[in-house]
This record gives sequence, structure tokens and C-alpha cells, in this order.
Amino acid sequence: MVRYEVRIGGFGGQGVVTMAVVMGETASLIDGKYVVQTQSYGPEARGGSSKSEVVMDDEEEIDYPKVQRPDVFIAMSRAAYLSYKDGLKENGTLIVDEDLVEIEGDLPKGVKIYKIPATRIAEKDVGVKQASNVVMLGAFAVITKAISLDGLRKRVEDRWPRFVKTNLQALELGIKAGEAALASGEK
Amino acid sequence: MVRYEVRIGGFGGQGVVTMAVVMGETASLIDGKYVVQTQSYGPEARGGSSKSEVVMDDEEEIDYPKVQRPDVFIAMSRAAYLSYKDGLKENGTLIVDEDLVEIEGDLPKGVKIYKIPATRIAEKDVGVKQASNVVMLGAFAVITKAISLDGLRKRVEDRWPRFVKTNLQALELGIKAGEAALASGEK
Repeated sequence: MVRYEVRIGGFGGQGVVTMAVVMGETASLIDGKYVVQTQSYGPEARGGSSKSEVVMDDEEEIDYPKVQRPDVFIAMSRAAYLSYKDGLKENGTLIVDEDLVEIEGDLPKGVKIYKIPATRIAEKDVGVKQASNVVMLGAFAVITKAISLDGLRKRVEDRWPRFVKTNLQALELGIKAGEAALASGEK
Repeated sequence: MVRYEVRIGGFGGQGVVTMAVVMGETASLIDGKYVVQTQSYGPEARGGSSKSEVVMDDEEEIDYPKVQRPDVFIAMSRAAYLSYKDGLKENGTLIVDEDLVEIEGDLPKGVKIYKIPATRIAEKDVGVKQASNVVMLGAFAVITKAISLDGLRKRVEDRWPRFVKTNLQALELGIKAGEAALASGEK
């Protein structure tokens, strides 16, 4: 893997920015990649939508920090899905929160779709709806292998010492959900 | 103010990234500016240094997301100060945590220096060392006027509902410290 681009979209309060920050920190501080992690806010942000991007590179410094055609798009809301689905790379990976995003309209050729009930898992199994972003991080790591699972566990432990139990539980459930989505193959 | 660039540097654990995220969110979600907020990590990040940038624009979308010559540099560590001091714009603004950063070496022409004891205030007055980033945000807002004080208060309330008292206290003490630094003039 040389340059690898991830885009995450959702609505305010889902922790989209935190998801991207923790992804970027894991990739850089632990996995040793070059990383640029970006939030861009325009007038649409005031409508409550949230977008965040991570560019990773195994080999060299990242000159161009903007995502061009993401390898992976994580959609946490219908609005984000509709806004950004067409930008996904051909044969790219789409990961959606399946209770919030229905697959509708055309997608670029060869896109692989993985459906993760992240918010449902966070709410029902973890008991903390706000942990849906950590569930999704676990699923992302296992589906894409772009960041290491052990690195992600360590980063989550270091970053949230006071909420480590909740977040590690969310992470492990996300990893399981990702494995199940992988096993059931492309949908 | 058209394009306005801020760079923040420190070490891991000081909340440099969070500071930039909250600054960017306030500028965009509340103050209505265009904002790009970026973390770039290279091999130096593994040594524990942390850098974060915010570009704001009142009028138009931000095409070039990288900071070129920051209008403001907030230095929370000596290593960050030494690495980035030369990049500051002429007549720019330098804000340092005065217990962590000594002014040494040359600075670009006309730079205004403001010294804020952010970590000391967080530790002694707030009782939470980790709140030094919120203290610094308050000082930044009052010194530069780049983000609104009321917007910052609102953002801090919305973002940390569980720690609102601590963070609002840190913010108000930071605002006071910024006012004192402004009143004592350029040093």
C-alpha cells in the first residue's frame, strides 16, 4: 500500500472527526506511516453534516493532503452517502451504518459494500450510543487492514484512559461485526 | 480577515489536536467561516511531538489546505517552538506557554509575543492539567479575535457536556490570562 485515502461522512454528534483522528493517530504513531488528517467545513456543516478525511502513505511524505478519490468511504448518514458516493474509487470499499444508510443510486464500478450496524451495536450491546464511531473503527480496521488491530487497541487505551472499558468493548464488537461482514462477502 | 492561518505545536498528551479541532469547529459551525483543519504526522510524531493547523476564511472556500506562513503560532513545547518559529509570518502573533517555552533565537520581523501560563493555570487553578489546551484556546480567542468568545463558550459546552464546568472554568481563566497579556502589551 502506497497512498491510501479514507473519507468519513456523517452528521454532527456521531464522532466522525474523532474517528478520523484516532485512525490517523494509529496509522502514524503506532503503525509508522505518514499521515495527513483533515476536516473541511463549509456552509453545509452548519446544516449538521460532518466530513473527515485521512490520507496515509507507507513510503513517503504526503504532498497533497486532500482526498482525491477515496479507497474507502465510511458513510454514517444518508446525506453523506448521497453527497460522496460518486467520489469513491472504482473497486473501492464502501462501509455503511446499515440502519442509517440504504444503498441507493449508482455506485462506481466494482465497489465492495460492507454493512455494519454500528449505531445499533453501540446502543444495544455497549449501552453507549456515542460509541458507534469506535465500533465503526474496529470494523474498518478488520475489513480494510489499513491500520493494525493491535495498534488500534493500544491507541484507544491510551487516548481514553477513563473510558477504556466501554471503548475497548465497542472496538471488539466492531471487529466482530467487520469479520462477519467480510465472511458474508460482497453484497 | 480573509485567509487566516494558525499553527499549534506541542507534545503528545497536551491536546494540541483537540485544540485545533475545537478552534476549527467554532470558526465554522458557529462563526460561519470556511475552515480546513489538518494534522500532519511524519516520523517526528513518534518522538512525541504534535502539530496541528487551522486555516480559516471569511469569504471563500479554502483551496490550499496547508498552512504556508501562519498568522499565529501557538507553541506549547520548546521543541515545537524551535521547529516552527521561523515559519511565522512577519508581524505575526506568537503565543507560548511561558513555563514550557523560553523565547530564544531570532524571530521573524515584528512578531508580537504573548506569554500565557496555560499549564500552570490548568494545574493550579482548574486542578486538571489536561485542561491547558482549553486555557490556551481562551487566550488565543481574546488575543487574536479570530474566533468569537461566545462561540467558543458554546462550542465547549456542546462538545463536553459531561465536563462542562471544568472546561468553562479553564476557558474563562484563559480569557483572563489573554486579556492580561494583551494589556501588558508586546513583550
